[in-house]
Amino acid sequence: MSSITIDRNAARPLYQQIAGQFRQQIREGRLPIGAKLPAIRRLAESLGVTRLTVQTAYDELRAEGWIETAVGRGTFVARSAQPAALMDSVGQSLTPRGVLDDQPRIEQIPIVRSFAYAEPDPALAPWGTFWHAMNRLRPQGADLFRYNPPQGDASLRSALADLLRERGVEAMPDDVLVTAGVTQGISLVVQALTRPGDFIAVEEPTHLGLLSALRAFGVEPIGVRRDRHGPRLDDLERVIAQVRPRFFHVSANFRRPTGENMSPDRRRDLLRLARSAGLVLIEDDGSGLLAYDGSAPPALKAEDEDDLVIYLSGMSKVMMPGLRIGYTVAPRPLHDRLIELRRAVDFCGVPFIQQALAIFLKEGELKRHLRRIIPVYRTRRDRLLAELSAQMPPGTSWSHPGGGFTCWLTLPPGVDAGDVHRETLRRGFAFTPGDAFLTQPGPPDHLRICFAGQREGIIAEAMVVLGQVIREQMEQPAFSGTDFAPSI
Amino acid sequence: MSSITIDRNAARPLYQQIAGQFRQQIREGRLPIGAKLPAIRRLAESLGVTRLTVQTAYDELRAEGWIETAVGRGTFVARSAQPAALMDSVGQSLTPRGVLDDQPRIEQIPIVRSFAYAEPDPALAPWGTFWHAMNRLRPQGADLFRYNPPQGDASLRSALADLLRERGVEAMPDDVLVTAGVTQGISLVVQALTRPGDFIAVEEPTHLGLLSALRAFGVEPIGVRRDRHGPRLDDLERVIAQVRPRFFHVSANFRRPTGENMSPDRRRDLLRLARSAGLVLIEDDGSGLLAYDGSAPPALKAEDEDDLVIYLSGMSKVMMPGLRIGYTVAPRPLHDRLIELRRAVDFCGVPFIQQALAIFLKEGELKRHLRRIIPVYRTRRDRLLAELSAQMPPGTSWSHPGGGFTCWLTLPPGVDAGDVHRETLRRGFAFTPGDAFLTQPGPPDHLRICFAGQREGIIAEAMVVLGQVIREQMEQPAFSGTDFAPSI
Repeated sequence: MSSITIDRNAARPLYQQIAGQFRQQIREGRLPIGAKLPAIRRLAESLGVTRLTVQTAYDELRAEGWIETAVGRGTFVARSAQPAALMDSVGQSLTPRGVLDDQPRIEQIPIVRSFAYAEPDPALAPWGTFWHAMNRLRPQGADLFRYNPPQGDASLRSALADLLRERGVEAMPDDVLVTAGVTQGISLVVQALTRPGDFIAVEEPTHLGLLSALRAFGVEPIGVRRDRHGPRLDDLERVIAQVRPRFFHVSANFRRPTGENMSPDRRRDLLRLARSAGLVLIEDDGSGLLAYDGSAPPALKAEDEDDLVIYLSGMSKVMMPGLRIGYTVAPRPLHDRLIELRRAVDFCGVPFIQQALAIFLKEGELKRHLRRIIPVYRTRRDRLLAELSAQMPPGTSWSHPGGGFTCWLTLPPGVDAGDVHRETLRRGFAFTPGDAFLTQPGPPDHLRICFAGQREGIIAEAMVVLGQVIREQMEQPAFSGTDFAPSI
Repeated sequence: MSSITIDRNAARPLYQQIAGQFRQQIREGRLPIGAKLPAIRRLAESLGVTRLTVQTAYDELRAEGWIETAVGRGTFVARSAQPAALMDSVGQSLTPRGVLDDQPRIEQIPIVRSFAYAEPDPALAPWGTFWHAMNRLRPQGADLFRYNPPQGDASLRSALADLLRERGVEAMPDDVLVTAGVTQGISLVVQALTRPGDFIAVEEPTHLGLLSALRAFGVEPIGVRRDRHGPRLDDLERVIAQVRPRFFHVSANFRRPTGENMSPDRRRDLLRLARSAGLVLIEDDGSGLLAYDGSAPPALKAEDEDDLVIYLSGMSKVMMPGLRIGYTVAPRPLHDRLIELRRAVDFCGVPFIQQALAIFLKEGELKRHLRRIIPVYRTRRDRLLAELSAQMPPGTSWSHPGGGFTCWLTLPPGVDAGDVHRETLRRGFAFTPGDAFLTQPGPPDHLRICFAGQREGIIAEAMVVLGQVIREQMEQPAFSGTDFAPSI
């Protein structure tokens, strides 16, 4: 098995080096389905490693579905390493819940390049710097692992107040509530302001996790349509008159899934409407700092002179989602109510992580990190837009994201996003069908493309395939769908 | 300032060494209120450290209320370092919310020895071993900080299934939901099973955080009285008949605040009653492994043949609360509903902490830790009981905790727990008045004593003071209270 080599000086553990090379060979077809892998003992001897090392590599490959072991016969490249078989389990339900359930599955299909998960590229994560910040805490010992105040660590709230100032939001540390991601911020606000059966206005299309979360609490999202300046205020007025929503969830900057911004005029007019209608606004600014064309525009909250806006943001998009850190600035007395609720729902966050993040922020590491990643994401965004122009058939259109991770594609009339999704998956590329981002079923003609996690070459390959699949779908005979049934 | 010394070989940072010695001197009255501290420059020179080091020490002392700086005059021992002034802010409200709010304040009063916070002694925390487990994860890099499945890290769920087996609970890793502490487990169950206005049966007295959490969700706790075998089943039947509670929250082992156990017969009878009445039981087993007299009795869930018990436990009491790790085993389909809710409320926990805990557990470190701490806590428990016998006046009684951190004291008739609480605070010892543990106002004649956090000498001192204060209160002329008003 001379094609497997190890590097004893590399930081990467030996078993991961071995597993990684098998993965690569299977992905590239050099080890086809059914091929037999070397016996553990033989490979261990030939590499000069322990049998446990090879065993661990094989265990990992088996857990990921790359290989399977037949007792007494040996270890083989698994049938499940073939895309078609793995694909069968995903793409069946295009509801928010179905799509959310699919995401981790897609990530585990080895041969698929995923444009489906709106998370930062792990290859760019500042985990080493964060680790350094954690290590600086070591002298504090046991104090790192005691209960924290429900509102969050004081040093972190101080650092977040500084960060808020850069978004144009004037807040003292005591005005900040640390949450377990933006998700917890939303869920606390929903618990504080709504009862099951209430209505919430959301931008249409909106954020996937939001729809799923609102429904789990038994509140009903109502979509507000958009034009190129932002949410249409006539549509918002209609929604207000019809259902009196408890609040309007909005992202002024790089909103998901389109990645576009609200115009300055629309911001002003929205705040004016909210004031006159007594409407609470929830601003999700989690991608606000990921600006690819010039400096990041201020938050909507920055212009909020009447304290109508509940501001939510977090570290998942600009840094790393596994920190589970978000933060909220809310008008009082809601602020106090949210702290009381956080105490009730999980008492407090992880003090160790909060304190390490405080060090990271105070030392300017977030700024340094953003300076490093923004040019990378900008290049990927630019490449995506160029390839879309080059590869998409007429009748396809797409958003022009100024920041964030996602682009919103509208398919030509009659082409079904679910079909495109399943077919591109079969060819090794995952996108997200757009139905899941809508409050009610519309024409299934959207795809979300997360461009942040893939290199430019892969983006180019993916757009070639996507363009081909859309063209093929356009050439299929169209069925009217609902009324059609095969004759028996 | 020859009374301050530093040790350059100590692990403790220099600024903490300096701050610690000032704290000690103020606590012992060697540096009285108003005493001037040396100028930063002078002290830095005399110790041979940088000015920043001294500045950091002073900043910490200032933040803690020990010292204050008058611009142009210098730095002085603060008036707030006097107990009476700090005390004024606590003990005013004896509701669960008021008592919970007081707890962190009491911890910050430097001269008070606290028996008020039911957390493990930080001096015994296994943080060094846990740190070692974290360091072993480093080769995984960025993968540590990505999204986790809402159900929790698979390796941790596998380790928790092993731990559950030791409590007599047969569960597969897939049956386990990882939560952010037991608190989140309770809040998820409340959200899944109740609506505002519903009733929940709880043991009387019960757990402080539970009452606060239930009320935040708008559900009403109803107390079930106890005898020495456990909850009185006739009282539970009365509660079931009167209000049809959605569930009964119960701890079979070392229940807070008494630290006592449910008898084997009562467990069996409770399960039988629950089955016949169709009553769901929520078992909080968070202290179940902290057994001081022989081996830990199994969980109630271990005898639950009809899948009536939702089992909750966590790492806060047996290890360190700052991990924010709890876990839940619930009957399906509730289990699936809880996972869906966890996704909605905060998506997932911190993968890094979960994976480090998995290593810690798999390597047997929890068992090693328990073998180390249980003798220490047992000695403190024994000393507390001995001192109570020696120091308390007639008419005082108390529980005999077989595990956990707390003892429940009943004062002689006519002695008010709020008065005792405020007076012992003034003399430097904090307990928790018992009203906060009751579902409705009763005679204010209970105190909770957390014995886990203090050494035996301090326990002895505290019981002398507590005995004195109770005696003094007994000698005060009694007012009938409600009807009495001063003549104008």
